[in-house]
Amino acid sequence: MSLKNTRESNYPEWYQNVITAADMAEVSSSPGCMVIKPWGYGIWERIQRLLDDKIKETSHENCYFPMFIPLSFFQKEAEHVEGFAKEMAIVTHSRLSLVDGKLTPASPLDEPLVVRPTSETIIADSFAKWVHSYRDLPIMINQWANVVRWEMRPRLFLRTREFLWQEGHTAHSSFEEAEHEAETMLKVYEDLCVNDMAMPVIKGKKPDFDKFPGAVTTYCIEAMMQDGRALQAGTSHFLGQNFAKSANIKFINTHNEQEYAYTSSWGVSTRLIGGLIMTHADDEGMCVPPKLAPYQVIIIPILKDKSKTDEIFSYAEKLRNTLKSLSFAGEKLRVKFDNRPKEAIDKMWEWTRKGAPIIVEIGAKDLEKNMVMFRNRIHINDNGWKNFESYTDFCNSICDKLQNIQTTMLHRAQHLMENNIITEIRSKDDFEAYFTNANTYLNQNHKPKVAFIRGKWCEDEDTIEKLKEMRINIRCIPFDQTGTEGECLLSGRKATLDVIYARSY
Amino acid sequence: MSLKNTRESNYPEWYQNVITAADMAEVSSSPGCMVIKPWGYGIWERIQRLLDDKIKETSHENCYFPMFIPLSFFQKEAEHVEGFAKEMAIVTHSRLSLVDGKLTPASPLDEPLVVRPTSETIIADSFAKWVHSYRDLPIMINQWANVVRWEMRPRLFLRTREFLWQEGHTAHSSFEEAEHEAETMLKVYEDLCVNDMAMPVIKGKKPDFDKFPGAVTTYCIEAMMQDGRALQAGTSHFLGQNFAKSANIKFINTHNEQEYAYTSSWGVSTRLIGGLIMTHADDEGMCVPPKLAPYQVIIIPILKDKSKTDEIFSYAEKLRNTLKSLSFAGEKLRVKFDNRPKEAIDKMWEWTRKGAPIIVEIGAKDLEKNMVMFRNRIHINDNGWKNFESYTDFCNSICDKLQNIQTTMLHRAQHLMENNIITEIRSKDDFEAYFTNANTYLNQNHKPKVAFIRGKWCEDEDTIEKLKEMRINIRCIPFDQTGTEGECLLSGRKATLDVIYARSY
Repeated sequence: MSLKNTRESNYPEWYQNVITAADMAEVSSSPGCMVIKPWGYGIWERIQRLLDDKIKETSHENCYFPMFIPLSFFQKEAEHVEGFAKEMAIVTHSRLSLVDGKLTPASPLDEPLVVRPTSETIIADSFAKWVHSYRDLPIMINQWANVVRWEMRPRLFLRTREFLWQEGHTAHSSFEEAEHEAETMLKVYEDLCVNDMAMPVIKGKKPDFDKFPGAVTTYCIEAMMQDGRALQAGTSHFLGQNFAKSANIKFINTHNEQEYAYTSSWGVSTRLIGGLIMTHADDEGMCVPPKLAPYQVIIIPILKDKSKTDEIFSYAEKLRNTLKSLSFAGEKLRVKFDNRPKEAIDKMWEWTRKGAPIIVEIGAKDLEKNMVMFRNRIHINDNGWKNFESYTDFCNSICDKLQNIQTTMLHRAQHLMENNIITEIRSKDDFEAYFTNANTYLNQNHKPKVAFIRGKWCEDEDTIEKLKEMRINIRCIPFDQTGTEGECLLSGRKATLDVIYARSY
Repeated sequence: MSLKNTRESNYPEWYQNVITAADMAEVSSSPGCMVIKPWGYGIWERIQRLLDDKIKETSHENCYFPMFIPLSFFQKEAEHVEGFAKEMAIVTHSRLSLVDGKLTPASPLDEPLVVRPTSETIIADSFAKWVHSYRDLPIMINQWANVVRWEMRPRLFLRTREFLWQEGHTAHSSFEEAEHEAETMLKVYEDLCVNDMAMPVIKGKKPDFDKFPGAVTTYCIEAMMQDGRALQAGTSHFLGQNFAKSANIKFINTHNEQEYAYTSSWGVSTRLIGGLIMTHADDEGMCVPPKLAPYQVIIIPILKDKSKTDEIFSYAEKLRNTLKSLSFAGEKLRVKFDNRPKEAIDKMWEWTRKGAPIIVEIGAKDLEKNMVMFRNRIHINDNGWKNFESYTDFCNSICDKLQNIQTTMLHRAQHLMENNIITEIRSKDDFEAYFTNANTYLNQNHKPKVAFIRGKWCEDEDTIEKLKEMRINIRCIPFDQTGTEGECLLSGRKATLDVIYARSY
């Protein structure tokens, strides 16, 4: 019952197949934008809730800033960037009129407005008004919002013109405090990815040429997809005084001197759902980690003998109510009794494709014996898929089961990552040979077609061009460095740093 | 310690003063848009959480549709409306370039995009793809989103160009089911307003001339502000087959015939916060009902004797932890220990202006006597403001106290509304005399300057013009009707309906 395309046969098509089969999102009539459907949006709501709690626990407050940014706010930035041009949505008119039977934009604006690609400039404008003294600092805020970047090759969840995200923005009275904030939020993102999404990540910072414009340091977490490509799962920028200078965020410090504030910003987006799919989905469809599943347990009645319908329904409802009274990971269990007038087998496959962690099927025999038959989604390809347990045992162990699924999913993903970070490549020649052959690299023992190479880099300017030619990236400079011994894999010259080389999304 | 303007002295300025004093929102550098600050956004988050639970309990699922709507989607609507012109934000370019040192919109779009003023058209486009048979129905979805309407006279929370809302959209296989859905959601909104926001409302439907374009029936709830003006707090539209016909949402019914679906839509917005302010704020600032307060209890240390600082802090923290372990209205208490380095009296006034329900002040004497001194925000003008209780009694009764505040706030607002719905006006002449004099109507015994008139209407076309001349509205046709006896207050002719006449926001 595999999807039309498998990871092995056609990875990009498989990705689209998973999204369609799990009914998570679809392409919209609005060019380059997506409709996030209930199962996909339900996962996003879980991510939001879990991350929002962490953001608030780390002393941030939510607020909301306008989506329209006056064009002039970009002027300074533009003047500092050679050949400035940005793919952004520009609002130029404030009225729609019918002129000779044809709808026409009317009432041109005095100043065009940019639909936020990110809110640094408009938020910095407010910070400049709010900050006068060190007593006004720190300001630590976050917003959940939609943002727009005019992608030319859109792809569901990974690159759409409009996407949803959170963006945190903070201002501090010292360099150290702002830098610490950026580091703290990277850890918060790591916690979300690893402990809630079961998606392991490598923490590090971006090389200078790939930093967020204006950042002193861009910290990032990088995840490995099942094809061995990297996905940037979140970034946290320490901005030093750069944004404060351009936005004039000044404060009187404790020595009664005027000083520019130190700022940070950090964000994750619906792109995480693309990462979740490519970390956990298999050839049958999506697998959702229990902490993120909109429903953790699905109950399907099997109504072969119609005379037993009432009994089966009341048994199923009793089970649902028992389960819903239990707590997993600090919240009540999310359980759905799927009583739609539809074939049970079709429902079972529908929820399997969606990746609901546990599917229970209740037939006449189960209630006679007071048993529960359940399927464990992550064991679809082994003996653990179909299971029988007494009603009591099932209810008593459901939270342990969910925790085991969560842990197993993380371990599987960690196993994939750990087995596919190649550290043995030490020379420029071997490096070139690897990436030349990577596309035909055989997918045996669940090995992806390309892997991460952890190796040396010399930081020289000319290597950046070489990366483009080879269509690979330096994903990050990992925090754990091993020294400067060895040869740069791009130049063959003496190296200075360990980096992660990979192809990426 | 009143605000600069009081309700009596200058109501519109008082409204702005409350928002500034409570630090809920501010005007942004983005024209006509607002920055919703943490205290205002915290209230919105509470509204979202409470309403979202109710929306889900009534079988709706959340999803997300694109914010950009192709211009052509409005063409059909435009052709049916004489003199069609809408104030909407239009995106015409997808690139920003620096041309001769000046930022310029570039890359004009083939088809301009409208920033959603509401999502009926783009959602109907998806529904048309999703619906084939009666088995695909009902579809019951909701989204939380930002929307844009190009307001020319913006006002914080009440009318801003961008605002936040939820919009529900449903499709059904029968007239009755869709009509019932629209009625159900009106009740959900009433529940939110009355039981969570402590804001009483009148339920009814709009007269035909004031319906949502394309609706068969527009249901609404209307609240009375403290100046006697009406605020539309929410609307729910039964759309019949009108939208289905224009968007081609068809299904095969149980008789194997093709039929257009029956749809509904319903929404409430951040405008509710404007209503909350004008229902509950007083001349000292905001009052937030406990169910919506981002913090329900504030604890402020009084540190006159510096040697007692540690003891006071640990007493305050013990109190905070005890309170945070308690539940009110199904959720843990939200408690803040405000230990900022700032004068206690300034903090007390800050939280009073914000309208935190209970403010506790902890000084050296309180811990000696194991007492709690607390202020009850809604009693600021009477003996109930400042209170003393033993630590144990305070903790044991805090949830009752919050419930009492919630109930008292509702009763106060109900009292205002009930006392200011005038039912005694029976003739056109008295009606005209009332509204001619309404602006000078004395504000005694907390009577607003204008009131709601509940009276008769004949439904004739010419009365609509009369309403405009008098600058009043028919707010709704309330569900409880008393018959057709009597004279229309606008025309003097024989009446057909009871309506609510009022000035409005």
